[in-house]
Amino acid sequence: MDNTDRQEKQLPPMTGPVCPVPIIHNEQIMMGHGSGGRMMNNLIQKSFLPPLDNPILRAGDDAGVINFQSSSRMAISTDAHVVSPLFFPGGDIGKLAVCGTVNDVAMMGAVPQYLTASFIIEEGFKISTLERIIESMKSSALEACIQIIAGDTKVVQKGSADGLYISTSGIGIIPEGINISGSNAKPGDAVILSGTIGDHGIAVLGERGDLGFKTDIQSDVAPLNGLVQSMLKVSRGVHVLRDPTRGGVASVLNEISQQSNVSILIDETRIPVKPPVQAACEILGFDPLYVANEGKLVAIVEKSSSELILNAMHQHPYGVNGVIIGEVVEKPAGRVLMKTAIGSTRIIDTLAGEMLPRIC
Amino acid sequence: MDNTDRQEKQLPPMTGPVCPVPIIHNEQIMMGHGSGGRMMNNLIQKSFLPPLDNPILRAGDDAGVINFQSSSRMAISTDAHVVSPLFFPGGDIGKLAVCGTVNDVAMMGAVPQYLTASFIIEEGFKISTLERIIESMKSSALEACIQIIAGDTKVVQKGSADGLYISTSGIGIIPEGINISGSNAKPGDAVILSGTIGDHGIAVLGERGDLGFKTDIQSDVAPLNGLVQSMLKVSRGVHVLRDPTRGGVASVLNEISQQSNVSILIDETRIPVKPPVQAACEILGFDPLYVANEGKLVAIVEKSSSELILNAMHQHPYGVNGVIIGEVVEKPAGRVLMKTAIGSTRIIDTLAGEMLPRIC
Repeated sequence: MDNTDRQEKQLPPMTGPVCPVPIIHNEQIMMGHGSGGRMMNNLIQKSFLPPLDNPILRAGDDAGVINFQSSSRMAISTDAHVVSPLFFPGGDIGKLAVCGTVNDVAMMGAVPQYLTASFIIEEGFKISTLERIIESMKSSALEACIQIIAGDTKVVQKGSADGLYISTSGIGIIPEGINISGSNAKPGDAVILSGTIGDHGIAVLGERGDLGFKTDIQSDVAPLNGLVQSMLKVSRGVHVLRDPTRGGVASVLNEISQQSNVSILIDETRIPVKPPVQAACEILGFDPLYVANEGKLVAIVEKSSSELILNAMHQHPYGVNGVIIGEVVEKPAGRVLMKTAIGSTRIIDTLAGEMLPRIC
Repeated sequence: MDNTDRQEKQLPPMTGPVCPVPIIHNEQIMMGHGSGGRMMNNLIQKSFLPPLDNPILRAGDDAGVINFQSSSRMAISTDAHVVSPLFFPGGDIGKLAVCGTVNDVAMMGAVPQYLTASFIIEEGFKISTLERIIESMKSSALEACIQIIAGDTKVVQKGSADGLYISTSGIGIIPEGINISGSNAKPGDAVILSGTIGDHGIAVLGERGDLGFKTDIQSDVAPLNGLVQSMLKVSRGVHVLRDPTRGGVASVLNEISQQSNVSILIDETRIPVKPPVQAACEILGFDPLYVANEGKLVAIVEKSSSELILNAMHQHPYGVNGVIIGEVVEKPAGRVLMKTAIGSTRIIDTLAGEMLPRIC
């Protein structure tokens, strides 16, 4: 639902408060450290990167790229999946585990080929439930045209996990001539969003019973490698691709603006949000820009190619609602700004602290 | 400590009982499903393999091998690490997470190159502790000459994990002409063990306070890729490599005998066990053959090359106590037999159920 729709339906414009910033105790891990926002970024920058530093990790993209031979590059990515509940409208942890990693690899312009999966299972977990989840992984793997080629299973005592956690790693080959990275955005580029935002986060929240009312919202969880390939087929003008999962669209745009040292200016009225998602966000005080998606991508593309790329997206089931939501400008570098529906401009900051817990 | 040593020290021969077989409820995951033995194997065979089946997964080796280009093959592996406690004599979960996956890749004869790591962290976990663990990963990565190129961090609510779990995936390149697999054992081959067994499992148990007495046993956790390379440098007669982690030496020998459709005959008096490990096993009723190792390997090699390979192992710090413990014979195929110290022969079965909980 964009704000034009919202005005027709007499809802207030999308300027809900961002999530509150918790007090930060630096001695202990807090939920905010896993939310894809500033706290997690601080933790990675301070605790993970200095000891483990290398050029591939330092690039800060969704997947590490290795120069395997002079003629070929591969993208490798990993993700732990801890969603609660394990089943939600539109998907489950298995589908999420496959799609999440497929998408991270695809966001490098790579063609995902192989996945590994490791399972941490709580004692007492139903095998029939596990099998449903594995079947779901199979379906998603088939759709994404990838194979799961290695796995591991660990069981922990009752009370030492919340049912099941799945970590997946993915590997894909980057076709020659493709160079996609969060640091490639250039002033003048167009910013494309592939569809409505917030569906996944609100679907999980609804299933958890935290909304206090019934909704029909389905998670958008889907493998996006096909969509990416259809975009790359029509143009080499794709500079950046990102899937706005934890932390939402706001967080990935901030990451890109900082990696590329540019400013990103988006138009609130162009951002598609489904009415029930919008309604849920308003009741709960969430800004949809910060809510997680699992089947959407943000693309920063050369302006001259933007209509061509958008047309290609519209031919793909996961890109039919694709829309240009803004542009890349020079200043203020490292900042994301939004023209609001009422004509003002506000800063869209990175998520500062805790987000919806365990939506991915 | 082999049984010659044991006789000198007037300890009884190593014929302790194997772990008891629990009643199997097929509806629920039990601790035994994560113990590397028959229950886990059943679960994998019944629940994981049929839906996810592909030739690479089906090969049943420690790492998936992909034909990336006609001229090059890569080994990919993944492991979830859930050891409790997180720190133990000789190592911690970080060292374990790096070495465990490095070793799985090395057991394919591959040169490990890159690792990914995903962290599931319990809310409230101390950042200083996390940083100690990451430092430990760094040291192990340096020793193993690998880079950690992608990562992910998820935080779960207090009570939804036991501090920290780490999943790692590894990738390595298999040099041309190397063909190592659990299905390559041939009658006449020699069975080499790289050193003393049971150190890791007993060290973790000791740290947990479950022994009821103090020991100085250190975990053997170590990256074995250097040892493997030194073996492959002197001979191409290495047919099988396996690291006997969960389920111990007994379980990997059973796996190999089944994959290769051969029998493996080992000599109890030749199996090195350190006296305090042996003593702890006797008190607790464990058979060291089933206790986990994290820095040992079993190699099945061409008999004519066995002395050459053993000499190369003795030059390497992680192979100084390498010893030939037996041979591959034709029958009974799929079975492991042991000549005991008292002259009889007994069947060494796969671990049937629950093992020491969370030693890796």
